[in-house]
Amino acid sequence: MKLSPDSALLTDLYELTMLQAYFDAGMNETASFELFVRALPLQRNFMMAAGLEQVLGYLERLRFMPDELSALSKTGRFPTPFLRSLEHLRFTGDVDAMAEGTVFFPDEPILRITAPMREAQFVESRVMNLAHFETVVASKAARCVLAAPDKLLVDFGLRRAHGAEAALLSARASYVAGFGGTATLPAGLMFDIPIYGTMAHSYVQAYTDEALAFEQFARSQPENATLLIDTYDTEAGARKVVALAPLLARDGITIHGVRLDSGDLAANARRVRQILDDGGLSAVSIFASGNLDEYQLRQLIAGQAPIDAFGIGTRMNTSSDAPYLDCAYKLVDYAGEARRKRSEGKTTWPARKAVYRLTGPNGVMAGDWITLDRERRDGEPLLEPVMRGGNRCASPIPLQSIREHAWRQLRALPNAQRTLDIDEPYPVAVSDGLRELARRLDEGRGG
Amino acid sequence: MKLSPDSALLTDLYELTMLQAYFDAGMNETASFELFVRALPLQRNFMMAAGLEQVLGYLERLRFMPDELSALSKTGRFPTPFLRSLEHLRFTGDVDAMAEGTVFFPDEPILRITAPMREAQFVESRVMNLAHFETVVASKAARCVLAAPDKLLVDFGLRRAHGAEAALLSARASYVAGFGGTATLPAGLMFDIPIYGTMAHSYVQAYTDEALAFEQFARSQPENATLLIDTYDTEAGARKVVALAPLLARDGITIHGVRLDSGDLAANARRVRQILDDGGLSAVSIFASGNLDEYQLRQLIAGQAPIDAFGIGTRMNTSSDAPYLDCAYKLVDYAGEARRKRSEGKTTWPARKAVYRLTGPNGVMAGDWITLDRERRDGEPLLEPVMRGGNRCASPIPLQSIREHAWRQLRALPNAQRTLDIDEPYPVAVSDGLRELARRLDEGRGG
Repeated sequence: MKLSPDSALLTDLYELTMLQAYFDAGMNETASFELFVRALPLQRNFMMAAGLEQVLGYLERLRFMPDELSALSKTGRFPTPFLRSLEHLRFTGDVDAMAEGTVFFPDEPILRITAPMREAQFVESRVMNLAHFETVVASKAARCVLAAPDKLLVDFGLRRAHGAEAALLSARASYVAGFGGTATLPAGLMFDIPIYGTMAHSYVQAYTDEALAFEQFARSQPENATLLIDTYDTEAGARKVVALAPLLARDGITIHGVRLDSGDLAANARRVRQILDDGGLSAVSIFASGNLDEYQLRQLIAGQAPIDAFGIGTRMNTSSDAPYLDCAYKLVDYAGEARRKRSEGKTTWPARKAVYRLTGPNGVMAGDWITLDRERRDGEPLLEPVMRGGNRCASPIPLQSIREHAWRQLRALPNAQRTLDIDEPYPVAVSDGLRELARRLDEGRGG
Repeated sequence: MKLSPDSALLTDLYELTMLQAYFDAGMNETASFELFVRALPLQRNFMMAAGLEQVLGYLERLRFMPDELSALSKTGRFPTPFLRSLEHLRFTGDVDAMAEGTVFFPDEPILRITAPMREAQFVESRVMNLAHFETVVASKAARCVLAAPDKLLVDFGLRRAHGAEAALLSARASYVAGFGGTATLPAGLMFDIPIYGTMAHSYVQAYTDEALAFEQFARSQPENATLLIDTYDTEAGARKVVALAPLLARDGITIHGVRLDSGDLAANARRVRQILDDGGLSAVSIFASGNLDEYQLRQLIAGQAPIDAFGIGTRMNTSSDAPYLDCAYKLVDYAGEARRKRSEGKTTWPARKAVYRLTGPNGVMAGDWITLDRERRDGEPLLEPVMRGGNRCASPIPLQSIREHAWRQLRALPNAQRTLDIDEPYPVAVSDGLRELARRLDEGRGG
């Protein structure tokens, strides 16, 4: 059986066992769930929300197809009346969320779903699966952008991304955070992200003559050739490019760039820049790749390595130093009553909440408030209505606008959050109203 | 545009730019590429191969669909004659590979593709994307199995897996490595893996009375109820189960288990076990979950915590301490000549290779040889022909057989590899024949 990314089957079994219990008990009052992150990973000063567009698409299209229901039926786990109720399952609820590209902090809800209980519960697994991953990647990619704000960064991560969807969504999330493009062809086609491609070492190795490999490639890609020059000897490779350029120029072909993928990138880039410049190729750009992350970018930038663009792969796409966030999708209100989980070490704030952000006179973020939804505070409210009654409140936001929002968010970061190192935490306060409600709920529960 | 997991578009742009250059140059001699891992992550003593079935499925079904070619055409990057050649692209080559579930070590090829250059080159991105990820997860899950060999381990990771395909493939890879099932419903349906499901805290929170939540759930799942008892107070939750059991028993309903998801799992399990046993419920099992990995499993097992089954999620599915492997898919032979990449720090072994494994009299793995393909050595050859001329050499191996092979592999591990801590490396030797060839190729290249 094939599974589309929108399939209603993309869920944990327990969502269905719970739905069946709600069905049997006739329970389907309005529920509010909020998605938030409990704590920052050790290597992060902030997080960046992403994935909302995919979440809304999933909610809009949610429905069980006949063949999916018959697959469920064949498991023998679910009685027919319950399965029949699933035929009619649609998402008819409300969504409030932070715009994609918004910077956020622990305990702040980034997404709230308010809907009849069975709908709001059912969507938990896939909503988290989508929003968590893109947020993980955008939060990592944003650090790369902060480390090299004036450079072209290109996602190179398909091969070691965790499956196909991870490759597509990490291309999108990194583009949201400020990357300039991706090597992943279908991400370019699906999301209209600029695509970049050069050549592999195998291409060069297939020729017995490296210079011939370069020439054939440039003739095949006359407007777009970036030549990988480190298969055997990087400086010799650069010299071959210099020798080749006038030959190609006679046929109107310009070499766009060279790529370095190994060794000491800063030292190699300096030597190659010199060779290219001495050969009259100062317009040829240098593209570097090879297990890069924000720390290596910072070092290369600080050392003024003459590198124009970076291919950033695995460590960004897998967010290798923090490949997951401690996020949760928790029931905060059911049937008009605020709810609170009190499991050891996992207590959550009850009730529908709002987040307000204060900004200093210089445009820099000055602190956030987490309040009850009905409280009002100065500052900008970060959660916005994005879906009402199962319908979007507005058309999908163009990816370019999301990028611009993300860029403004990064510009507004305080210095303590802008650094790659871990500095003072950002001030997030919880309102007295929310604290008071939590206290009352705990008392009400008794011992 | 929708993208199927088999789509030929699931590739890096550079595979197509290289294919175009090969097309323009008329190059399409036979090429051999090998997939291997350069080094073990710091937290691994061995790796476990997985994902071959998905790779073979991809190769079998490889073809560009008309709408995909028209999407490519619209990019304006590719001339029509080349696009037309892609209409006929199929995989017609050979694959030799280690069986899924086989333990392997750095520099050992786990997969070799021999095919006309354009086919062998083109499939690089997706073949790596599939084989790398499942191998990452199987290698992590195998450590969990070694830490708790007699316990039921269940994959709980959909929500924080990196997208939908990661959830499906990590369910499969962990089952290969010895997990007993998954909570991810579609993985159960697609791969015939046992599925497990309990309830979320939100289910309990939706009721004003925890005992009523338990009762309704058990009545809804009379053969299969596992009750989550830590939403408010774990011991109180256990006592409610004891009070409820005789009531349900009158209606022929048995409570299968309870789940703990927070706090000190060992201490909580001991207290809950006592309460259940005192209440005559010694048949009710205890299921534990909550950010578990192999280290916590080891500790819980060493402390003889009375836990029968574990839900293992995020840290396994993302392989959080080593979310990627330094793997490569390298050209080793083209047009009958061995090839070698010599980039700084990334030199690879040339030529088509074989791997032989020696086993001691006690059945324990004693050491591996990496040799030229044509050399013969004592021991078991680990690479087997699995595809010839684009056709599988045998039907897909049932997942149960793969699991049994993996289990035998884990049983044959030397103690130094069996421990979770990093001990002596496993002995892997490179044959003189291979060393000699590498030396000759380097000399041939000159300076």
